[in-house]
Amino acid sequence: MNDNLTLAQLAQQLGADLRLAEGASAELLPSGLNTLQDATPTEVSFLASANYRRFLAETRACAVLVTEDMADACPVSALVVANPYYAFARATAIYDRTPTPAAGVHPAASVHPEAEVDPTASVAAGAVVEAYAQIGAGAVVGPNSVVGEGSVIGARTRLHGNVTVYHGCAIGSDCIIHSHAVIGADGFGFAPSGGQWTKIHQLGGVEIGDEVEIGACTCIDRGALGNTVIGRGVKIDNQVQIAHNVQIGDYSAIAACSAVAGSATIGKHCTIAGGAGVVGHVTVADKTHVTAMTLVTKSIAKAGSYSSGTPFSDSRSWRRSAVRFAQLDEMAKRLRDLEKQLANASSGEGD
Amino acid sequence: MNDNLTLAQLAQQLGADLRLAEGASAELLPSGLNTLQDATPTEVSFLASANYRRFLAETRACAVLVTEDMADACPVSALVVANPYYAFARATAIYDRTPTPAAGVHPAASVHPEAEVDPTASVAAGAVVEAYAQIGAGAVVGPNSVVGEGSVIGARTRLHGNVTVYHGCAIGSDCIIHSHAVIGADGFGFAPSGGQWTKIHQLGGVEIGDEVEIGACTCIDRGALGNTVIGRGVKIDNQVQIAHNVQIGDYSAIAACSAVAGSATIGKHCTIAGGAGVVGHVTVADKTHVTAMTLVTKSIAKAGSYSSGTPFSDSRSWRRSAVRFAQLDEMAKRLRDLEKQLANASSGEGD
Amino acid sequence: MNDNLTLAQLAQQLGADLRLAEGASAELLPSGLNTLQDATPTEVSFLASANYRRFLAETRACAVLVTEDMADACPVSALVVANPYYAFARATAIYDRTPTPAAGVHPAASVHPEAEVDPTASVAAGAVVEAYAQIGAGAVVGPNSVVGEGSVIGARTRLHGNVTVYHGCAIGSDCIIHSHAVIGADGFGFAPSGGQWTKIHQLGGVEIGDEVEIGACTCIDRGALGNTVIGRGVKIDNQVQIAHNVQIGDYSAIAACSAVAGSATIGKHCTIAGGAGVVGHVTVADKTHVTAMTLVTKSIAKAGSYSSGTPFSDSRSWRRSAVRFAQLDEMAKRLRDLEKQLANASSGEGD
Repeated sequence: MNDNLTLAQLAQQLGADLRLAEGASAELLPSGLNTLQDATPTEVSFLASANYRRFLAETRACAVLVTEDMADACPVSALVVANPYYAFARATAIYDRTPTPAAGVHPAASVHPEAEVDPTASVAAGAVVEAYAQIGAGAVVGPNSVVGEGSVIGARTRLHGNVTVYHGCAIGSDCIIHSHAVIGADGFGFAPSGGQWTKIHQLGGVEIGDEVEIGACTCIDRGALGNTVIGRGVKIDNQVQIAHNVQIGDYSAIAACSAVAGSATIGKHCTIAGGAGVVGHVTVADKTHVTAMTLVTKSIAKAGSYSSGTPFSDSRSWRRSAVRFAQLDEMAKRLRDLEKQLANASSGEGD
Repeated sequence: MNDNLTLAQLAQQLGADLRLAEGASAELLPSGLNTLQDATPTEVSFLASANYRRFLAETRACAVLVTEDMADACPVSALVVANPYYAFARATAIYDRTPTPAAGVHPAASVHPEAEVDPTASVAAGAVVEAYAQIGAGAVVGPNSVVGEGSVIGARTRLHGNVTVYHGCAIGSDCIIHSHAVIGADGFGFAPSGGQWTKIHQLGGVEIGDEVEIGACTCIDRGALGNTVIGRGVKIDNQVQIAHNVQIGDYSAIAACSAVAGSATIGKHCTIAGGAGVVGHVTVADKTHVTAMTLVTKSIAKAGSYSSGTPFSDSRSWRRSAVRFAQLDEMAKRLRDLEKQLANASSGEGD
Repeated sequence: MNDNLTLAQLAQQLGADLRLAEGASAELLPSGLNTLQDATPTEVSFLASANYRRFLAETRACAVLVTEDMADACPVSALVVANPYYAFARATAIYDRTPTPAAGVHPAASVHPEAEVDPTASVAAGAVVEAYAQIGAGAVVGPNSVVGEGSVIGARTRLHGNVTVYHGCAIGSDCIIHSHAVIGADGFGFAPSGGQWTKIHQLGGVEIGDEVEIGACTCIDRGALGNTVIGRGVKIDNQVQIAHNVQIGDYSAIAACSAVAGSATIGKHCTIAGGAGVVGHVTVADKTHVTAMTLVTKSIAKAGSYSSGTPFSDSRSWRRSAVRFAQLDEMAKRLRDLEKQLANASSGEGD
């Protein structure tokens, strides 16, 4: 947003204590951010984990965000903060070059006369805003995105290009929705009858809190009855599937390619790693962590880390284990038999 | 569609026997549908499973769809039907408020002069219909959707916003295709040669039967030679991948995030749960059920339920099992050894 | 592209030795390609695997691509080549009917005045090309696709309909990007602080080599710092997720629904089957093969085939094994106990 700051101004914005290296100038204009290894002499870096400490001594960065205890070890100017990773995150906002579109409706956009677009909002070329939709102050509807009838896009929320929001959905303020995300498509509901499927029209909507980020190609289905609800500050990665009537608690984060099935409730501050699945109608406790490609088949009552699957190995070794997996029940019975035989034998010995 | 029905008219439309509670009026205009727990006094509910029976006594719904045997237990007016879930599904069509676009081509749509659009069809703003494409009677091409050269969209089929249909595909009548679905992209075919890949251009198309529903971000690839075929009444959820030359039998249903690899044949009336995979070139029998996140690696000759994977647990317990998984073959051999030793010992005892 | 060739001309283009069957004419105009089983008398077929040899005798094809040793067994004209599958792949380019759009910018496209579009490129209806973007010679931007600010589309690269390329991405020449692919959306990066997430703006871009194919609904995220890099000749199927700062080596192929997490490095000539996952920050050796739905949780130092998971079976048998999986550590300990007891017993015997 503002990448024309001096090192001193940057320190001030981040609340960092600037300790200049010998001969360094607080008036230097850093050009951006980079890792300790790759930073050039005009870039600022950060040390957020002990794993990277070994790169500190050799860094060419002009300054490094560090904690107090690492300040002396820093061979260049130090920007001392309590939480370098958080300070780095804040710094990325300063050096971000994502273009911000100008306010106004592009002549190649199609906005229904009954839609309400705030004059400070931006509606890009090819975007379609349907009747009764509301686009909030400072919101952005990207190129070729579609906002359905009666849906509400909160203030400063940005839909990137080619996002689709169906009718009757409400997205909070300060959200980021990435390209090809789909908000409010029908949940997957059918009543079987006579070997065929009768559609259960999905009468609910989607309700997304403030400060939510939703990844590319992620789908959040509308509710069957009542809404699918995404809490405040939730972060969802790409290609995630959130089924109808799911509830995701505030500040939970879900990594790419995961899926949460219908009517499941995920607590607050949960972290779900990539490719995981949660079956329908279960409840997952606050602060639960689910590891990659795990399938959660029951409710989780207690915070903690949960996993399923098998370790990977070379296919030949794996195949030997896999064959045995199918024999496990038989093996367990044979083990029990041996134990009995041995118990009998030794009780016999005791005679 | 028509939500201005009295309770008596609703009963008639659903073929239900209306048994009014004391003091209730058949002239009441229900406002919608809801669960037993959440229904307000103007909403109709349903009891479709014994699991929900406990909510019946306390419901505030104006009427409940029930089977004959539950009619007496119903504290409010009963709508007696043979199959309450099916009746509920039919009722959702009555109360659905999904906007229906007006017939005609929007001025901001791009329809090629050689395309054929039925005058009763609707082509929305930003939609692109290419040469020789045919859009059937009452069909809807949603905003920013693309219909490729020569493709056919059947009568009353609806493409929601941002759907892409490549050239040379045929979609039946009464289908629903959700946003960001892709019909007819190239199958993944390459011939290796000299460490590089030579593209196998995909010369076939896609053929989709009547009454098919396809979820958001689902991809159905065109055939390499010959067509990929989706049977009548098939229901496919979001983010499903159907590879080239797959055949899906009539009335099968595939839940979100599943994938069917090239040239696999899925029978009729199959149900595949979420995140499952089916490898290429296999055949799956009619009426097969596959559980969530299962990988089907061989043909299935007999209807039934099929699974793979491990149960989930807390990560610490899981890790203990996972470590042992890699030792399974060795454990099996040690078990066999023990059995031999014990057999030798007892035959020795018998000496 | 040119399907008006005689059999003799086709042979010449493919470098095949045409051996005419008795009575056959080299002047015949083949109508297309098909399998041995399904070919009509005007179609050319191929025998690429011993598995299909049994179909050769009965084929009705006008000619078959075969190796020298199968030429005599061919009942129709033979097109003798060293590698029939590769020759078939080259032949598919000849009979491909994918429409090629005309050069020029469609009047319903929105091209920013500061964008640079080569006069031989094609920009379709509804496409949006933003400021400073460059569209190379012969490149195609499909209907409703979006090319972000400053992004570069190489010569002859084709974006099908509804593709989104964010700002600051570079795509090489001769690439094919399928519908609803997303290039350059933000990587999933947040710094936790006080129970909330602070966005790490993604300052890098995406760099895609020449001759890359990217499937429908596949997402390739931009780098956090530095670029995400896809090597030359890489082939990626549908619904694949490539996270920020991943590096994919030249000529690797990744099948549908796989995901590679942040900062992972995949070598050259790797093949990753469908639904597989690779966790973040690992390195995978050149020429590694990963089987379907495997989760790679550690670096792979040596080429080979790698797997995880369990075999599938009927759900009842599977459940028996699955229950035992959770008991594996206990079983292993009981096995060890038995071994000790037996060792003690036999050493006792030896007394």
